[in-house]
Amino acid sequence: MERKVAIFRKEHFNAAHRLYVPGWTDEQNLEQFGKCSNPHYHGHNYELIVKVTGTPDPKTGYVINLSVLSSLIRAQVLDRFDHKNLNLDTKEFASLNPTAENIVLVIYDILRAQLDPSLDLSVRLYETDRNFVEYPA
Amino acid sequence: MERKVAIFRKEHFNAAHRLYVPGWTDEQNLEQFGKCSNPHYHGHNYELIVKVTGTPDPKTGYVINLSVLSSLIRAQVLDRFDHKNLNLDTKEFASLNPTAENIVLVIYDILRAQLDPSLDLSVRLYETDRNFVEYPA
Amino acid sequence: MERKVAIFRKEHFNAAHRLYVPGWTDEQNLEQFGKCSNPHYHGHNYELIVKVTGTPDPKTGYVINLSVLSSLIRAQVLDRFDHKNLNLDTKEFASLNPTAENIVLVIYDILRAQLDPSLDLSVRLYETDRNFVEYPA
Amino acid sequence: MERKVAIFRKEHFNAAHRLYVPGWTDEQNLEQFGKCSNPHYHGHNYELIVKVTGTPDPKTGYVINLSVLSSLIRAQVLDRFDHKNLNLDTKEFASLNPTAENIVLVIYDILRAQLDPSLDLSVRLYETDRNFVEYPA
Amino acid sequence: MERKVAIFRKEHFNAAHRLYVPGWTDEQNLEQFGKCSNPHYHGHNYELIVKVTGTPDPKTGYVINLSVLSSLIRAQVLDRFDHKNLNLDTKEFASLNPTAENIVLVIYDILRAQLDPSLDLSVRLYETDRNFVEYPA
Amino acid sequence: MERKVAIFRKEHFNAAHRLYVPGWTDEQNLEQFGKCSNPHYHGHNYELIVKVTGTPDPKTGYVINLSVLSSLIRAQVLDRFDHKNLNLDTKEFASLNPTAENIVLVIYDILRAQLDPSLDLSVRLYETDRNFVEYPA
Repeated sequence: MERKVAIFRKEHFNAAHRLYVPGWTDEQNLEQFGKCSNPHYHGHNYELIVKVTGTPDPKTGYVINLSVLSSLIRAQVLDRFDHKNLNLDTKEFASLNPTAENIVLVIYDILRAQLDPSLDLSVRLYETDRNFVEYPA
Repeated sequence: MERKVAIFRKEHFNAAHRLYVPGWTDEQNLEQFGKCSNPHYHGHNYELIVKVTGTPDPKTGYVINLSVLSSLIRAQVLDRFDHKNLNLDTKEFASLNPTAENIVLVIYDILRAQLDPSLDLSVRLYETDRNFVEYPA
Repeated sequence: MERKVAIFRKEHFNAAHRLYVPGWTDEQNLEQFGKCSNPHYHGHNYELIVKVTGTPDPKTGYVINLSVLSSLIRAQVLDRFDHKNLNLDTKEFASLNPTAENIVLVIYDILRAQLDPSLDLSVRLYETDRNFVEYPA
Repeated sequence: MERKVAIFRKEHFNAAHRLYVPGWTDEQNLEQFGKCSNPHYHGHNYELIVKVTGTPDPKTGYVINLSVLSSLIRAQVLDRFDHKNLNLDTKEFASLNPTAENIVLVIYDILRAQLDPSLDLSVRLYETDRNFVEYPA
Repeated sequence: MERKVAIFRKEHFNAAHRLYVPGWTDEQNLEQFGKCSNPHYHGHNYELIVKVTGTPDPKTGYVINLSVLSSLIRAQVLDRFDHKNLNLDTKEFASLNPTAENIVLVIYDILRAQLDPSLDLSVRLYETDRNFVEYPA
Repeated sequence: MERKVAIFRKEHFNAAHRLYVPGWTDEQNLEQFGKCSNPHYHGHNYELIVKVTGTPDPKTGYVINLSVLSSLIRAQVLDRFDHKNLNLDTKEFASLNPTAENIVLVIYDILRAQLDPSLDLSVRLYETDRNFVEYPA
């Protein structure tokens, strides 16, 4: 029987960021991004939920070993973004506005490149417990 | 690249309600709705999660500005239902049983009418942290 | 060794209420209680945390058997207030304003009368996850 | 109008388990399952979310009466697994490795057999708040 | 009857910060503060719980009107720190290391000066859901 | 100014246990401990909150470095109890009933012996999110 099961792993990281469009005036940025455009940055405790879908191995009963998945997230995502200033300290957001939408797309692409193609991937990112995003939708 | 991302906003409101079918006897209502048919109403802290799916704007990185979405939910849903008796104080539930299923459908219809047609919408409503509903399913 | 340990049990109930002072005008009540004075009631999912402190029995290792404590809370508090309109359906709040402060004092007195005098008692009540009270302070 | 709504009920149970493949050496089991292969078992507070999707009854406004669904979960799942050793006390895992993936498939099959075929079913199982699974994915 | 009840209000703010002692070398700061000394700042979703203890007013049943307390916290704490870089944008932490311990003391002092002396005050601050502080202890 | 601040660190571990008094009959144990006396064990995700109170260092602003405290909890508590059968795999509960009360006392004694005497200690242990204990009370 080939039944696909989703397995989820939750991790978190803390980072600073600032939202703004370089070509815009301060007034335009303030109007669009409000307090999030503060030039000296603010920050979040980002919660990340990685969903991997596949067929459990008939012998082990695992879709993927969660300690393997957790290590992959740590090496590829947390070590890159945790306790960083996303605008200043990361090449991914050097010229890309670090909105939650853009962060979740970047994390998806990083993890997608590392996972076996037989596994489906989805990523959810909480910027706060009231604001969060998911890709694919 | 046209990639659809979902963005979620969580809000809450408090309301009183009573579940019953007008044409039924008290015994029938009690059998079907239990304590929820108490004639003097009871209440809940409703948690609402609104999910909007679309393509992030290439310049701002936003699917929708969350302060715009939050204001829309406030004006259209919270101002209408917060600290209200759903059966007595709202036209939506004057003759519609305010089950979680019916409330989520009503909120979906209210928000759907206000959102750009290019955006997809889904609504989840928590009546308690153990009982909740979602539309579309 | 006589060491006192606290043990906590969390329960919940749903109820409707209205805040108002009978001798006041509608304007005075609205000014003091805001939307909480809505004449048709609103409601909450109340979360209740009961803390009992005492010396663990040397044989069983129990301060109090939690199934006994849980049954006591159910019989004395939940059966009395769950799915009720506090103002209309309960004698305790027939002439006492059902603020969180007054509710926690009433629940404390009910439970205190049932517990062995050798045990200390404290009660916390969440009206929402952002508004809560505790007695004794 | 025939609109399908999902309704969710959260329940929980506590159980002990051990992960291992009978034909493997202790070293192989330790390499694959880490501390989860401890021969004397460890345990979890499992949180279970059952999602049932269907068309609300036009009279009652219910997809399914949640007290009926809750009783079904209690009788079929909680009474079977709560406070049990999954490997030793249940026939379902006597020869099936009790990974989260396998547990969620077993619970799905148990509940699917009891539900009206017009209703869709999905089950999510939290082993911890950071590790969870869902079927169908 | 003069019985003191505690009432709690939870609020939150997002901010960036960096931990370091000005007179220390980078190596000393890194050894003491780890990733928290990153020169480009990182950030948090700070959760704040303000506890006010007093005797409920016999007429209203309120220790303090929570909408008054919430407005006070907003005006005195959130408007000052929300979406700010604590090191660069606030005078309170211009020369004081913004550890959780120091932040909670600063917030306590700000609120203490605004509250009626008959009311007791305690402040809890969550830097993450696993790291938090309280004053008075 | 010498002001004492409390700092909290939350950790967790998973374990199996069984509650029973050796000298009692199965019927006596079942009557006192219910399903918790199941001879084949059941288990929990234990959440542990360690509270340390002291005066922040005037230079660093730390009561205690949380990475030091976290390492201490890991070395002394998690490595000892995580993924273990408390009754069979630990000397602490070889002849002591592993109730939540007894576990919290054991953890307190272990940590108290490791902490500087100038620091106060309190430990809270969640067996489930509805059942928890604290020492000192």
